[in-house]
Amino acid sequence: MSITVVGSVAYDSIETPAGRRERCLGGAATYFSLAASFFTDVRVIAVVGDDFGPEQEAVFAARKIDTRGIEHTAGKSFFWEGSYLENFNEAKTRNTELNVFASFEPKIPNAYRDSDFLFLANIDPVLQRRVRESMPGVKLVAGDTMNYWIKDHRPALLEVLKGLDVLLINDTETRMIAGNNNLLQAARAVMALGPRFLVVKHGEYGATLFHEIRPKGERAELRTFRAPALPLEQVIDPTGAGDSFAGGFFGYLASQPELTPGTFRRAMFYGSVMGSFACECFGTERLQQLTRPEIDERFHVFRQLTHLD
Amino acid sequence: MSITVVGSVAYDSIETPAGRRERCLGGAATYFSLAASFFTDVRVIAVVGDDFGPEQEAVFAARKIDTRGIEHTAGKSFFWEGSYLENFNEAKTRNTELNVFASFEPKIPNAYRDSDFLFLANIDPVLQRRVRESMPGVKLVAGDTMNYWIKDHRPALLEVLKGLDVLLINDTETRMIAGNNNLLQAARAVMALGPRFLVVKHGEYGATLFHEIRPKGERAELRTFRAPALPLEQVIDPTGAGDSFAGGFFGYLASQPELTPGTFRRAMFYGSVMGSFACECFGTERLQQLTRPEIDERFHVFRQLTHLD
Repeated sequence: MSITVVGSVAYDSIETPAGRRERCLGGAATYFSLAASFFTDVRVIAVVGDDFGPEQEAVFAARKIDTRGIEHTAGKSFFWEGSYLENFNEAKTRNTELNVFASFEPKIPNAYRDSDFLFLANIDPVLQRRVRESMPGVKLVAGDTMNYWIKDHRPALLEVLKGLDVLLINDTETRMIAGNNNLLQAARAVMALGPRFLVVKHGEYGATLFHEIRPKGERAELRTFRAPALPLEQVIDPTGAGDSFAGGFFGYLASQPELTPGTFRRAMFYGSVMGSFACECFGTERLQQLTRPEIDERFHVFRQLTHLD
Repeated sequence: MSITVVGSVAYDSIETPAGRRERCLGGAATYFSLAASFFTDVRVIAVVGDDFGPEQEAVFAARKIDTRGIEHTAGKSFFWEGSYLENFNEAKTRNTELNVFASFEPKIPNAYRDSDFLFLANIDPVLQRRVRESMPGVKLVAGDTMNYWIKDHRPALLEVLKGLDVLLINDTETRMIAGNNNLLQAARAVMALGPRFLVVKHGEYGATLFHEIRPKGERAELRTFRAPALPLEQVIDPTGAGDSFAGGFFGYLASQPELTPGTFRRAMFYGSVMGSFACECFGTERLQQLTRPEIDERFHVFRQLTHLD
């Protein structure tokens, strides 16, 4: 089943201990859709400027990603500059230029309206909600957010959470939304705000899935599933690892006939697989070169990394 | 098979967001031996002062731990005071009084000499080495260390590493020993100094086992296995969680007829199980009350937390 994703398509200048790259193609929607495209059809809603040309278009086309929802406007695309010199788990932002993204009004092409899966990448919750409400027929909605929206746009964010089935955020964001430092208690509090599934990302330590199961006639019970991150021989650039995780996770879900708890557990592994590949080169380079057999091979590595037998 | 452990038996005053306790029975050898005692016979080598009496002795006796190697001398026992108010993953030391521990000269009772397993808890590497050399017949030796020895006693520590089969340390210590920030490369570097097995503890994120396997006729290959930590409803006191992990890990190994890679993977789970229990009460309270069925039940929870099927 196809996924519609709304989010940023951007240029990133990145510095890591492995080097520096200027104006790589980036943005949450880019990483997400490249990662998800290995599992299912993906349709993107975003806005770009005059600096987005045939070369960038070709990156999406090579993965058969539908870009009819990428609006081209006069001006420059969203630009971000960040450094991981001090900490590989968290970027230090040096510069953010919203450019054409500042007046982004997501427009949903009619051809996208039969999508069964919707991913709301990290953008203004007012826009996330508008897109959610324009696609009432979707089967599963997942979303991301960040500290800025949690701190300063809480009422709008709470409205978005009500309409989400799955929320993917990191430890700090989980604790911030809940106002509780205990991860398990914080997870419960966040899920009480809407999402039935919560994926908490731990950077180099992997991610935890929280979801409720309700055995027949028994009280609901919070189940947790932990997928590790792969210790990599060399981390080149962690930019987009979280969005690639989301793409692998959601892409796998959308490719499956049934959404059982087991499907979600395997989705956590596919998310981790895609996140690990994203770190191996600057920007989206590794995702562009990736093949499906490599993905399946790494899924097997994750199994070996975690399973007793 | 029985384990001999050498390390500290101490009193700890602990402050955490859950409260404060004065002079709990603590010390690495205490946590280790309580945790390991659920799996196999344990014998302790340590030194205590006049403040260690029948009440403390009874804690060891209740778990059938051999305390003939605990030397009683005039003076006060090792005392540590620490706080987790700012960070649950790392204690802030407020006070350390070595007391009788300052002149600790480990003496190995003859009755301990047939031990097959030896655990060198975090003490001066000169003493670790002396104990190691006094027990040449042991089958498997594991050890721990800390930043202080790594920074200021490196030559002595390197001698200890040569004699270890298993080293259990945390992320920061691994990176410090190796002088390398990449965990996988650092693990390789540490293992090149001696230990065939390296367990890197990640606090609330679990622990990773690194070990070499050498498939017939192929090049040696570094295998990794990640055991998560359990997200707990309430963390009361993380003191001793790492030593309890070591006790569960090494105790399980000592209880098994064969040391296969699978045995080591299961040992990682038993380590995580014991570490999780240690955090549920102040000091050693939870380990004192624990039962074997509770351990097996929690092992099952760890399986659910990590396994796809």
